[in-house]
Amino acid sequence: MRFFSDNAARIHPKVMEGIARADHLDTAYDGDRWSRALDARLSELFGTGVEVLWVPTGTAANALALAALCPPHGGIVCHRDSHIQNDEGGAPEFHTHGAKLMLADGEGAKLTPDAIRTLIDAIANDVHRVQPHAISITNATEYGRVYNPEEVAAIGALARERGLGLHMDGARFANAIARLGCTPAALTWQAGVDALSFGFVKNGAMSAEALVFFKPGLADVTRRRRKRAGMLMSKGRYLAAQILAMVENDLWIVNGALANGCAERLAAAAGDRLVHPVEANEVFLRATPAEAAALRAHGFDFYDWAAGEIRLVTAWDSDAQVVGRLADAIAAL
Amino acid sequence: MRFFSDNAARIHPKVMEGIARADHLDTAYDGDRWSRALDARLSELFGTGVEVLWVPTGTAANALALAALCPPHGGIVCHRDSHIQNDEGGAPEFHTHGAKLMLADGEGAKLTPDAIRTLIDAIANDVHRVQPHAISITNATEYGRVYNPEEVAAIGALARERGLGLHMDGARFANAIARLGCTPAALTWQAGVDALSFGFVKNGAMSAEALVFFKPGLADVTRRRRKRAGMLMSKGRYLAAQILAMVENDLWIVNGALANGCAERLAAAAGDRLVHPVEANEVFLRATPAEAAALRAHGFDFYDWAAGEIRLVTAWDSDAQVVGRLADAIAAL
Amino acid sequence: MRFFSDNAARIHPKVMEGIARADHLDTAYDGDRWSRALDARLSELFGTGVEVLWVPTGTAANALALAALCPPHGGIVCHRDSHIQNDEGGAPEFHTHGAKLMLADGEGAKLTPDAIRTLIDAIANDVHRVQPHAISITNATEYGRVYNPEEVAAIGALARERGLGLHMDGARFANAIARLGCTPAALTWQAGVDALSFGFVKNGAMSAEALVFFKPGLADVTRRRRKRAGMLMSKGRYLAAQILAMVENDLWIVNGALANGCAERLAAAAGDRLVHPVEANEVFLRATPAEAAALRAHGFDFYDWAAGEIRLVTAWDSDAQVVGRLADAIAAL
Amino acid sequence: MRFFSDNAARIHPKVMEGIARADHLDTAYDGDRWSRALDARLSELFGTGVEVLWVPTGTAANALALAALCPPHGGIVCHRDSHIQNDEGGAPEFHTHGAKLMLADGEGAKLTPDAIRTLIDAIANDVHRVQPHAISITNATEYGRVYNPEEVAAIGALARERGLGLHMDGARFANAIARLGCTPAALTWQAGVDALSFGFVKNGAMSAEALVFFKPGLADVTRRRRKRAGMLMSKGRYLAAQILAMVENDLWIVNGALANGCAERLAAAAGDRLVHPVEANEVFLRATPAEAAALRAHGFDFYDWAAGEIRLVTAWDSDAQVVGRLADAIAAL
Repeated sequence: MRFFSDNAARIHPKVMEGIARADHLDTAYDGDRWSRALDARLSELFGTGVEVLWVPTGTAANALALAALCPPHGGIVCHRDSHIQNDEGGAPEFHTHGAKLMLADGEGAKLTPDAIRTLIDAIANDVHRVQPHAISITNATEYGRVYNPEEVAAIGALARERGLGLHMDGARFANAIARLGCTPAALTWQAGVDALSFGFVKNGAMSAEALVFFKPGLADVTRRRRKRAGMLMSKGRYLAAQILAMVENDLWIVNGALANGCAERLAAAAGDRLVHPVEANEVFLRATPAEAAALRAHGFDFYDWAAGEIRLVTAWDSDAQVVGRLADAIAAL
Repeated sequence: MRFFSDNAARIHPKVMEGIARADHLDTAYDGDRWSRALDARLSELFGTGVEVLWVPTGTAANALALAALCPPHGGIVCHRDSHIQNDEGGAPEFHTHGAKLMLADGEGAKLTPDAIRTLIDAIANDVHRVQPHAISITNATEYGRVYNPEEVAAIGALARERGLGLHMDGARFANAIARLGCTPAALTWQAGVDALSFGFVKNGAMSAEALVFFKPGLADVTRRRRKRAGMLMSKGRYLAAQILAMVENDLWIVNGALANGCAERLAAAAGDRLVHPVEANEVFLRATPAEAAALRAHGFDFYDWAAGEIRLVTAWDSDAQVVGRLADAIAAL
Repeated sequence: MRFFSDNAARIHPKVMEGIARADHLDTAYDGDRWSRALDARLSELFGTGVEVLWVPTGTAANALALAALCPPHGGIVCHRDSHIQNDEGGAPEFHTHGAKLMLADGEGAKLTPDAIRTLIDAIANDVHRVQPHAISITNATEYGRVYNPEEVAAIGALARERGLGLHMDGARFANAIARLGCTPAALTWQAGVDALSFGFVKNGAMSAEALVFFKPGLADVTRRRRKRAGMLMSKGRYLAAQILAMVENDLWIVNGALANGCAERLAAAAGDRLVHPVEANEVFLRATPAEAAALRAHGFDFYDWAAGEIRLVTAWDSDAQVVGRLADAIAAL
Repeated sequence: MRFFSDNAARIHPKVMEGIARADHLDTAYDGDRWSRALDARLSELFGTGVEVLWVPTGTAANALALAALCPPHGGIVCHRDSHIQNDEGGAPEFHTHGAKLMLADGEGAKLTPDAIRTLIDAIANDVHRVQPHAISITNATEYGRVYNPEEVAAIGALARERGLGLHMDGARFANAIARLGCTPAALTWQAGVDALSFGFVKNGAMSAEALVFFKPGLADVTRRRRKRAGMLMSKGRYLAAQILAMVENDLWIVNGALANGCAERLAAAAGDRLVHPVEANEVFLRATPAEAAALRAHGFDFYDWAAGEIRLVTAWDSDAQVVGRLADAIAAL
C-alpha cells in the first residue's frame, strides 16, 4: 500500500497493448510509423501545429526543453522548490552546459509575474551578470497546486514582454487538465508556453514522455541534442506507441482524474491537517512522528516530507478500497 | 524484408514476458527488486564481482563508460571507423565534457597495440597536448569483425602499462561471444576490460542495455551522471526485467548465434564479393548500383555503405526463408 | 575622482619595474625563471609548501579553484551575495562544467557554520539531489567585511568534517590581512583553506593573480585546465614578475593598508550612514538620490548600490587629499 | 641564442610605451578609452567595419572564435596538424562545449577546397553524424607556409556555399601579410573570413591578442563568453594599449618582416635541407641527431620536431648577428 510516488505505478493495459501492436520490424530510431504519427496526433490534441519528440524520462524532457530555450551563458527563472532545481541531479545544468537556475519564491511552489519581475529586474544587463533567457513553471506543482490558464497567461505575457522563453514542466499535466477541465491549448500555447514536458510515465506509461514544442524552430536542434545526449532510442516505436495509447480516447485525462479523485478523498479526510490545498494527486499532511508511525503500522508507505509533515501521492492505479482505508486511518488519527 | 539494421528488430517474446512479470507497483528508479538483482546476476555471468547500470541506449552506455574512464581534458583512443566517432552525434564529447577522440587505424575497424602505440607515443606529455586516458574498442566491430580474447588481452596489457582505462563497446557482444565460444569473462575483465557496454537492444530487448563495470569505484559516480544526464528511468524495473530475461538460459547467446548463422549463410553465397570476413551478423558486399538495384527489386532493403558496397545486417529474428532467398539472389547476381 | 572600484586603479611603480626586469627572452609559458620562483616565494610567505599558478583575472582564479574542488555533478556552498554567484557571468558554472552554486545567507555577505549546516543538512544523499563538494568564502567580503582566523577555522572544521573542499576568494585578501594583522598562514591553511585566489590586480598589479593551492594534488590537473581554458599566457614571466614585485617587502600588505586607511577616513565621516561596518576598503552609505547627486556635483564618481545606498571603494592609489575632500563632503550632507 | 619559439620574445619598446601611457585610473574592464578605440582603429586597418575584443592569449582568441561559429553539437574542419588540434590542450572543445574537430590533410598544413569537400561530403546529414559548421585555417601555418588571398577566397567560397563559418588563426598573421604584401582586407573579409585571431604576442606584444569579427552579430555573445571564461581583464586598457601600439605606423608588419627576413637568411643557408618552403618565420630542417648536436654545441637552442628534423623560429627581436652565425653553422654542417 505504497503512496510514495506516482512514478512507480504500473503500466496501463492499453499502453501494454499499444506496445504489443508496435512489435513489428520497422525503421529504427524515430523513422517508424508510430513516431511519425506523433506530430499530427498531438497537433490535433492541442489544436495547433506542434512538433513532438519522445524521450525516456521527464528529466530528459525538461532538460532538453531548457536547452532549447536558454544558451549556456544564460539563466532560467524557476521556483525555489521546483523539480528542476531540487530533484534532477543537475540535469538542467548538464544539458544547457551550465546555465544558471534563478530561484524565485511563491506560495504552493507557484511563480507569479510579480515574483519573477522582482527577481529579474534586479539583474543589471551587463556581462558580469547572467541574464535570464527563460522561465520554467510546473503544472501541477511539486505541492500539487495547479496554475489555471489565466495564471499561466499572465506569466506568458511577462515572458513575451521580456523576450524570455516559457517552459512548462507537465510531469503532472494530466492532473492539472483533469482538475481544470480546460483544453490543453488554453493551458499551454494560448497562454504563451513555448515548450511542454508532457508527462505520461506517472500516469500509466512505461517509459515515454513527450517533449512538445509550440514555438517553431526548436525541434530540429533538439533532435540533434537528443541524439547527442544518448536518448535517441533505437526502437522509438515502442515509446511513440505508449504516447499514442495514452492520448487515445483521452486515457491520459481519465487517468489523471482517477488519481485526483483518490487524492480528494484523502484530502476530505485530512481536514485541518492539509498543508496545501489539494488540487491534483498529492496530499501534504501535518502529522507527528507518532501519527506517521500509526499510519505505517496499518501498512501504508509514504515519504516524510519535512519535520511534522508527510506526503501522500495517488496514482491512476490507486486501489479505491486502499485509499478508503487510508482516508479512514487519517480521519482516525 | 529489411536488412538495414539489427537495431530495428522485434522484441523477443521472453523479453515481453519479463516486462509483463515486472508490471507490479514497486520502488521507483532503480530501487526495485529487478534492478537490485542485476549485480548478482551479471556477476555470476561474468564470474567476478561486477556493478551494473541499466541505460536506455547503447550510445548512453558508451558515453557514460567513457566519462567514467576519461576526464574532460583527456583523450580516448578509438578506431577511425568506430561508432563512438561516427554515429553517436557527439555523445562522447557531450558526456565527457569535451574529451577528444584520438583516431587510430586498423584492418576491419580493429585496433592493435601497435596502432595505439604509434598514436600515443607521438603525444608529448605537456599541457599543450591532450593526453590519452582511455582506449575504446568495439566487439564485434562496425565491420562485423571479432577480437578474440588474446587480441583484447594484448590491448589490455598495453592499457595497464600506460595507465589507460579500457572500454569495450559491446553493442554486438552477443555476436562476438556466439562466434568465439569463449566465456564472457575471457573476453572482458580477464583481458583487461574495465567497462563493457553490454548490448541487448540489437539482440531482442526493447530498450535496455547494461553498462557493466569490472573496475571498482566507477559505478557510484556513474549513477550520479546517469541521473544528471536524464537517463535514470522512473520505472527501472522494466529495463532490468529485459536484461534478466535476455541472460536467462543464455538467450542472448542463442540470439547472437541465430543472427550470426543468417549472416554466414549470406556470406557463403557472396563468395568473392565479401569486403570483410564475416564473423558476426554483418555482411559487406561489393555490388554495383545495378546489382544493388536488382536485389532491391526482389524486395530486399539495406544500406549502400560506400561506392560499390552494400551492407546487410541480420538479426535474431531474421526469417530463415527470407535469408535463404536473399542468399540465392546474391548468388545469382 | 573615481570611487567606483579598486579594479581600475593604476599599476604600482614597483610592479612596472618588475615587468621591465622580466623583459628578456626566456622560456615561454611558465617555464621561465620568474614563474618557477613562485612556489618557493609563496611557500615562504605562507610558511608551508604551496603550489602556485598565475592567472590573468580573479574570475579565472576563482573558477579554476572551484573546478579543482568540485566535480561537474556537485555543488558549491557560497553566499547569496558572493562575487562568484553574481558578478562572474557564470564562470564557475563554465569551468566546473555545470556545478551548482548553493546559496546561503549571512550578515555582511559572511557565511557561518550554522548557515552552511542548515543548507546542506537538508540535502538528502541520493542521486536526485546535487551534493555539496565545496564551500567558497570571500575575504574581505563583497560588503567589505572581514572573516578573522577563528571564523575561517570554524568553517574549515565543518568542511573537513563533511569532506568538503574550502576555497577562499581573496580578491581583497590584502585588505583582510592588513586589517587583521595576522599571518597569511593563520587566515588560510591553518584555518582549513585548500585553495586561495590571492588577488593582486585590485591592489597594484596589472594583470596577475595567484591561485594558491595548499592541498597537494590539485595544481597539476589545474595546470591542464588553465591551458584548456586558454589562460596559459605565452609570456608568463610578465605575470610572475608582477606577483613577485607585489610580495617583495610586503608591498601587497602596505597597499592594502593604504586602501583600508582611506576607507576608514570615509567611514569616520559617514557615522550613522554606514550600512556595514567598514573593515576593509569598501564603504556603503545610506544616501538619498539628492545626496548622491550632491556628492557627484563635487566631482566624485561611485556606484548606486541599492535604493538609497551608495558604494565607495578606495584603492592603494587613492589620493589622500581627494579622500579628505570626499570625507568632508559626506560629513556635510 | 634561442630559436625555440617567437612566443618567448621580448616586448617591443613601443608596446612598453603604450602600456605606460595607459597607466591612469580609468574605467575597469573594457569601458576605458583605449578599449573603446579598438573598433574604429581596426576598422580603419581592415577597410571595413569590424568588432574587436582583446583577449590574453591566442588560444583564447581561437577558442572564442570557434565558439562563435560552431554550436556544441557541431564540427569544425581543420588541418590534422593545426594548432587548435594539437597544441591547445583541448581549448576548442572546452569553449565550444564539445564540438568535434574534423581533420583534413593538405601539404604544408594548408587546407584546400578539395580536401575539405572530400571530408564533409562523406558526412550524411542525419542526427547520428556530427555536422560541420565551420572551417578553421591558419595563416601562416604551423609549417610556416602562407595562404595567398586567392587560396583563402577559394575556401571562403566553399564555406559560403555550404553555410559554414570561416575562421583564420592569425597567430602569425603579421608574417603572412609581410610576406604577401597584400592588404589585411584582401586576406580576410574580402576572401570570406568571418573571424580572425589577430596575433600580437609572437610579434612584440606582452599579453594581448585581438579577436576580430567581420561578420556582424558575433561580438556581443562573445563578450559574454569572454567574461564567462574568466578572460575579461579588470584593466583592459593595458591590453588595448598594446594592440594600438602594434598597429601604429604598421609596427606589426615591420616586425613580421623582420622575423621573416631572419628566416629567409636561414633558409638560404639550409638549401636542400629544407622540409618546407620558408614563407614566414619558421624553418624546418632535415638534420641528423649529430648535426643537431653540433648546432647546439655552438649554443643554439631549438626544438627537435620529428625524427631527423629540427624547427627554428625567428622573431622580431632576433639578433641579426646571431642569425648570421646560425646560418653559417647550418651551411657548415
